[in-house]
Amino acid sequence: MSTSINLAVIPGDGIGQEVVAQGLKVLAAVLPQDVKLETREYDLGAQRWHRTGETLPDAELEALKAHDAILLGAIGDPSVPSGVLERGLLLKLRFAFDHFVNLRPSKLFPNTDTPLAGRPEIDFVVVREGTEGPYTGNGGSLRTGTPAEVATEVSVNTAYGVERVVRDAYERAAARPRKKLTLVHKNNVLVYAGHMWKNIFDTVGREYPQVTTDYLHVDAATIFFVTQPERFDVIVTDNLFGDILTDLAAAVTGGIGLAASGNINPTGAFPSMFEPVHGSAPDIAGTGKADPTATVLSVALMLRHLGREELAVRIEDAVAADLAERDGTFRSTDRIGDALAARVAG
Amino acid sequence: MSTSINLAVIPGDGIGQEVVAQGLKVLAAVLPQDVKLETREYDLGAQRWHRTGETLPDAELEALKAHDAILLGAIGDPSVPSGVLERGLLLKLRFAFDHFVNLRPSKLFPNTDTPLAGRPEIDFVVVREGTEGPYTGNGGSLRTGTPAEVATEVSVNTAYGVERVVRDAYERAAARPRKKLTLVHKNNVLVYAGHMWKNIFDTVGREYPQVTTDYLHVDAATIFFVTQPERFDVIVTDNLFGDILTDLAAAVTGGIGLAASGNINPTGAFPSMFEPVHGSAPDIAGTGKADPTATVLSVALMLRHLGREELAVRIEDAVAADLAERDGTFRSTDRIGDALAARVAG
Ligand SMILES: CC(C)[C@H](C(=O)O)[C@@H](O)C(=O)O
Ligand SMILES: CC(C)[C@H](C(=O)O)[C@@H](O)C(=O)O
Repeated sequence: MSTSINLAVIPGDGIGQEVVAQGLKVLAAVLPQDVKLETREYDLGAQRWHRTGETLPDAELEALKAHDAILLGAIGDPSVPSGVLERGLLLKLRFAFDHFVNLRPSKLFPNTDTPLAGRPEIDFVVVREGTEGPYTGNGGSLRTGTPAEVATEVSVNTAYGVERVVRDAYERAAARPRKKLTLVHKNNVLVYAGHMWKNIFDTVGREYPQVTTDYLHVDAATIFFVTQPERFDVIVTDNLFGDILTDLAAAVTGGIGLAASGNINPTGAFPSMFEPVHGSAPDIAGTGKADPTATVLSVALMLRHLGREELAVRIEDAVAADLAERDGTFRSTDRIGDALAARVAG
Repeated sequence: MSTSINLAVIPGDGIGQEVVAQGLKVLAAVLPQDVKLETREYDLGAQRWHRTGETLPDAELEALKAHDAILLGAIGDPSVPSGVLERGLLLKLRFAFDHFVNLRPSKLFPNTDTPLAGRPEIDFVVVREGTEGPYTGNGGSLRTGTPAEVATEVSVNTAYGVERVVRDAYERAAARPRKKLTLVHKNNVLVYAGHMWKNIFDTVGREYPQVTTDYLHVDAATIFFVTQPERFDVIVTDNLFGDILTDLAAAVTGGIGLAASGNINPTGAFPSMFEPVHGSAPDIAGTGKADPTATVLSVALMLRHLGREELAVRIEDAVAADLAERDGTFRSTDRIGDALAARVAG
């Protein structure tokens, strides 16, 4: 636990700018006097790409390595062809820094809206693999744009990659009161990757007899997310299934405005990166309508990762208290940030 | 419109047997006197595999071609390794008979349970591609079972395959009152396949100026399925995304017990196959708890496909009326089948 935090900040596109400002505000408010916070902002995203054609130059990738952590707002803009910034910047960071644990907690806070009738108890965490699967960029297109085009996408899965994330998920499950871990895949169709995942899941599980395990196909899992979300504790899954399930999880737990995430490299070899699950929402950028809570909760995940558990809890408690008092009155991005900063400081 | 129907019946595993019996009961009741129904049952599934090691022998695949349509119950049993029956029987049929339109309507009938608060209006249909994508079985595993294992799954997509299903979806959208078509993919990550899908979607769309179009990433689509399902009319999507989204759709519209599907070959070169979306549910097999409604609604889709629109509507109306009168009292599989048969006959 160091007495300084050297943070890289990538506000990115759209509401990314606005929500990151609030995240930093709350971070500054929660840090004790004796912890020195240094931040460096990186100008990356759509505007940079339009100006220079660059997404993430080597020099900046190199510079980012020196930080203790990265706080990212959002990446993506309709003025940039789909995939350019996602692959060239966001996924490039996740892969270059080997963020193999993409951690996405889902919790239904009191007094928040859920589209689910009957308000089930929801408190689970998805451990999404972050460096393999269909996200590797492996694939191609032949005879592009012609009626004879063939396009492939290759999901690449290694025992090395699966074992480490599965182990991380068992550790997390073992540390939680309910100690339950669910593997989600589609091993009745994707038999090669699916069986490898299942075998490794079973093998590693023998080292964690205290953890109850379960397997669900991804299609069936979506059903339980809406009919019985309380059945989940920790979920471990592939990169793409994790992407899909965590948006659904956000939707059933108060909305995407509350969903935090950490792209974690548990070895510490490279800085981990924390970001709200939501996107850049260009339609509401600049209107003050963006809820910065997901970013603030991502700052809490970051502090936990940096060994500052008590500060993480302080932020999470502040968010819970803030949500409990919401009555539907509109508060701007800035006002919500102010309120949370005041709570964590007090 | 022929005056006879030569139907292949594959009850399959678990509750497949029970629900198919009710589907046939309702079919017999709805058919006019002058339509001759011939059925041949095929003994395929887990029991056959245990007995002979066969999933779908060539002779039976050949024999199936002679039928006007196939009615299938469910495939899969925990006593058989995951994937053996799915790949060797169910998917083999879909691929061999070129069922490129996997049609899955979702409708929230009056008086049915939905986990969604506020009961939104839901009435959309998913056109799931059925012969490509990650379902081709393309992939493999190297150094299987060792710490150095690499497993791949290749999603194969062709302009030929995408264009025909996209066109089918536009036709369906154009024929519906709202005339709206949404493409769901993940073209910010799966850039090769995703861009091909999007380009073809846009190109074919120029021939259907009366159809309003929309694009959603699959993760965002799951959010709208629970927060705003009324925004959807027709959805066209890839094989795997369609698999995931239609289970979610079933969950929000009265449950998987009501979800019907058709694996359709619109050219008529091979028989189309109709099946409930649910699985074999071995936990409730033999208890009489299975709801045969999804199978009965699949029979309606079959009749529509065979040019018997008025009979399809008669079944759908009977289901709606039956659901409207449900009051939570338990009725066995058989009783529900009887009630529906009585309604369509009357
Ligand atoms: C923007 C996109 C590349 C990204 C992903 O698919 O991982 C996003 O959806 C997420 O979940 O963080
Ligand atoms: C059983 C399985 C192979 C199948 C699929 O994935 O297509 C099922 O989930 C379905 O949706 O019909």
